[in-house]
Amino acid sequence: MGLFTKDIKTMNDLFVHQLQDIYYAEQQLVKALPKMAEKATDPQLKQGFLSHLKETEGHVKRLEDVFRMHGAKVKAVDCPAIDGIIEEANDTAGEVEDKAVLDAALINAAQAAEHYEITRYGSLVAWAKRLGRNDCAAVLQKTLDEEKSADQKLTTIAESTVNLRAAS
Amino acid sequence: MGLFTKDIKTMNDLFVHQLQDIYYAEQQLVKALPKMAEKATDPQLKQGFLSHLKETEGHVKRLEDVFRMHGAKVKAVDCPAIDGIIEEANDTAGEVEDKAVLDAALINAAQAAEHYEITRYGSLVAWAKRLGRNDCAAVLQKTLDEEKSADQKLTTIAESTVNLRAAS
Repeated sequence: MGLFTKDIKTMNDLFVHQLQDIYYAEQQLVKALPKMAEKATDPQLKQGFLSHLKETEGHVKRLEDVFRMHGAKVKAVDCPAIDGIIEEANDTAGEVEDKAVLDAALINAAQAAEHYEITRYGSLVAWAKRLGRNDCAAVLQKTLDEEKSADQKLTTIAESTVNLRAAS
Repeated sequence: MGLFTKDIKTMNDLFVHQLQDIYYAEQQLVKALPKMAEKATDPQLKQGFLSHLKETEGHVKRLEDVFRMHGAKVKAVDCPAIDGIIEEANDTAGEVEDKAVLDAALINAAQAAEHYEITRYGSLVAWAKRLGRNDCAAVLQKTLDEEKSADQKLTTIAESTVNLRAAS
């Protein structure tokens, strides 16, 4: 969340502010995922990043729907957390020589982003319900479920092939 | 992970690098948690932050044990992800006027840190096992379990009192 935003006075302000924060984060991930897919060597991982890119584009659209449903302006605010997570992913990827080890590092980086989103969407769903916006909560819950499923798929790829190859 | 670290060539290098990254993150959280406890108004939340501070100090010591068990130098590297998460927490806390809303924002911030750690310890446990270091994996698993439990406690506090007060 940015330093130059308006003060947050109510739960509703916090909800809208968090929507703006995750809207920025999803947009950054739309830019980051194709690069991660390009770097990945495991075909299943590469495909996983590309299909999650499609999902992430859908998450951006869903957030725009929630903004509109809630009568708030569609707007993004800086999110230092996702910037830090992506910066760390790029730093690490740049340091890894071995392709199999790089795949393990890419999964680790992607899971940090997934978990960041799981936390944020978890709060957004809870706050939407408290604000009596079950309609917004239902839309946000769909994305939350997809983020959890993406995280689980990454764990499966890591455990089934990538970590084994990386450690060999 | 830092830009000026040695190249990562093997799974073992990645494991040690990730230990250094989370060692930095835990140290930053030892500094951040007392400030979050100070800002919190809900007594259960304040107490929750203080007891997680004690656990976090324990996590730092456990990481030092793992470095030594693995024959690696005890060392921290910069972790832009946790810096971003803490920066965002401070930004947001500084923007919130209402005390009950501030508590909700603090929980959301703390859960982002917990989820970051859950991801990293999850990878560390998996990698330690692949590297044949079940002894290190067992120590890291203890911390992973505590992070998951801390996250769950925060959800309970949010759902039982904080979000209700914040939305009223």
